[in-house]
Amino acid sequence: MSSLPVDRRAILAALLVSAAAAPFSGPAAAQDDSLPSWNEGPTKQSILRFVAAVTGEGSPDFVPVPQRIATFDNDGTLWCEQPMYVQLAFALDRVKALSSAHPEWKTQQPFKAVLDGDMAALAKSGTRGLVELVMATHAGMSTAEFEAIASDWLNSARHPKFKRPYTDLVYQPMLELLAYLRANGFKTFIVSGGGIEFMRPWTEEVYGIPPEQVVGSSIKTAFKVETGGPELMRLPAVNFVDDGPGKPVGINSHIGRRPIAAFGNSDGDFQMLQWTTMTAGRRLGLIVHHTDAAREFAYDRKSHFGRLDKALDAAEANGWTVVDMKNDWNRVFKFDQGIRRSD
Amino acid sequence: MSSLPVDRRAILAALLVSAAAAPFSGPAAAQDDSLPSWNEGPTKQSILRFVAAVTGEGSPDFVPVPQRIATFDNDGTLWCEQPMYVQLAFALDRVKALSSAHPEWKTQQPFKAVLDGDMAALAKSGTRGLVELVMATHAGMSTAEFEAIASDWLNSARHPKFKRPYTDLVYQPMLELLAYLRANGFKTFIVSGGGIEFMRPWTEEVYGIPPEQVVGSSIKTAFKVETGGPELMRLPAVNFVDDGPGKPVGINSHIGRRPIAAFGNSDGDFQMLQWTTMTAGRRLGLIVHHTDAAREFAYDRKSHFGRLDKALDAAEANGWTVVDMKNDWNRVFKFDQGIRRSD
Repeated sequence: MSSLPVDRRAILAALLVSAAAAPFSGPAAAQDDSLPSWNEGPTKQSILRFVAAVTGEGSPDFVPVPQRIATFDNDGTLWCEQPMYVQLAFALDRVKALSSAHPEWKTQQPFKAVLDGDMAALAKSGTRGLVELVMATHAGMSTAEFEAIASDWLNSARHPKFKRPYTDLVYQPMLELLAYLRANGFKTFIVSGGGIEFMRPWTEEVYGIPPEQVVGSSIKTAFKVETGGPELMRLPAVNFVDDGPGKPVGINSHIGRRPIAAFGNSDGDFQMLQWTTMTAGRRLGLIVHHTDAAREFAYDRKSHFGRLDKALDAAEANGWTVVDMKNDWNRVFKFDQGIRRSD
Repeated sequence: MSSLPVDRRAILAALLVSAAAAPFSGPAAAQDDSLPSWNEGPTKQSILRFVAAVTGEGSPDFVPVPQRIATFDNDGTLWCEQPMYVQLAFALDRVKALSSAHPEWKTQQPFKAVLDGDMAALAKSGTRGLVELVMATHAGMSTAEFEAIASDWLNSARHPKFKRPYTDLVYQPMLELLAYLRANGFKTFIVSGGGIEFMRPWTEEVYGIPPEQVVGSSIKTAFKVETGGPELMRLPAVNFVDDGPGKPVGINSHIGRRPIAAFGNSDGDFQMLQWTTMTAGRRLGLIVHHTDAAREFAYDRKSHFGRLDKALDAAEANGWTVVDMKNDWNRVFKFDQGIRRSD
């Protein structure tokens, strides 16, 4: 948790926030206090109206507390996924860290590409190459050992653009949204294409989401009793891919209820949004559209990571809310002092 | 919820309870009020002492609330599994219900055995035969359709010995234990070899355990968008067997934390008990031993269903509590008025 130098710009920004907040401090705006990083407008209103509709006693759309299930994608929805998925950066760093024990990697793809920093050759190795990377770096140890390796890496690694720990690069408006939904009786789940055991060590502290509410992709594990006690060994075999049509399957397997609200940012969330919203009763589907190259990254239909194409086309017909990050969020990260607009 | 005739024996029993309860009504015994169906003695004490140790502020064994995870087997631990697993009774009834659409079953094993009521021939078909039965009766419909089929059956089926709905045949002392643990900050999970989607429709009402806290065996599902909306179709392929060494795997996959207490009754729970208790810190492992032929069933090492052999041998060395159902429980079922002893 490093602190930024307090410069004139930050002070000015802080003053602007206070000034902008004043007109909304009356009782009529009291309901908005829990989403201060969301600018007033249709996007924020769609969230507030949905929550009012499903929680209001006597509302025709009232949903009892146990059924208030909300699912959130992680990469690109709760934290930054550019210039590459955080877990891929982890895998690449692990290849480098393990390379002295694997002299054969110097000539063997996709490892050679990683060691040479040749991203074009890595991309050419395709899905098969990526799976090989994951198996070589994520398997062959116990679940406890992997948790320690992932936690250590997250504590020391820094994002190439923001020069901060990856867990600082979570979206402040989404943290507020998670807290706001929980305050209204929702149970919040992560449903991510990322590795379930890569996320669980830190989601409780960072998002307030406990391990048992994290759904993700996984490799197989096997139970063994060693002299040191029982262990779960991580095997080099894919167990489940929690992406695209896998997301409704993962939701059904882990949660066993259909969500009433789902939050995503890419085509990998398309089927989760369909599964959540294409049914009777009041539902909320929301897509975070990355439109802010200055404060974060701007990308959609042509991005290698977090491509948003089919789901963006389908948003209007399905009544999904599309967040325009640049205009709907007055703050992207907690450390971000640059207020764009707050009308 | 049928009511038994109130006979003299029941009235006498009720009087005995009141009389027996009197000496314990002082402040020293106030902590015992939440487990009234458990007789005083070492078994009940082992539970009370464990809960006091992990919840007492300042206790050297104190465990923070989020880590108070307790896992319960279902068949034979929370409800009756004799004369056969409830889900097997369901599968056999489904074969009969579907047989008119499957004339080939009249001559084809294992279906012929089911239709002829030939349990010896069915047993001879082995695991392969059972898997065939499950695939023919549990797959080929959507998850919503399967939930309706399973719920309808549970509403109408009756246990052959007790002539009651199966959901009446849950153990009253275990219901009290679930509530007692939850009142002490535990999160209670089912971890069962039974089908996850066979349990979820009723565990919340019967046990107070919501669908997202149920772990079980499963078949594969696939997401499809039909004209009527999105569906998850149940496929005739095994996805996961949550039994024996599969239980720690299922716990890790669904919960992502190691339990501090586990409750089982058979060798299928052996590895879950090991995973829970063979580690540093205060832990509770408990085995329900079916010793009461009069009020329920008496079975262990030689039973086809719920065999308890290896785990019983290992109980002493591991410090697991073994419940002697006949002597430790003054009531087995809620409807059971026969008080055995309450000293």
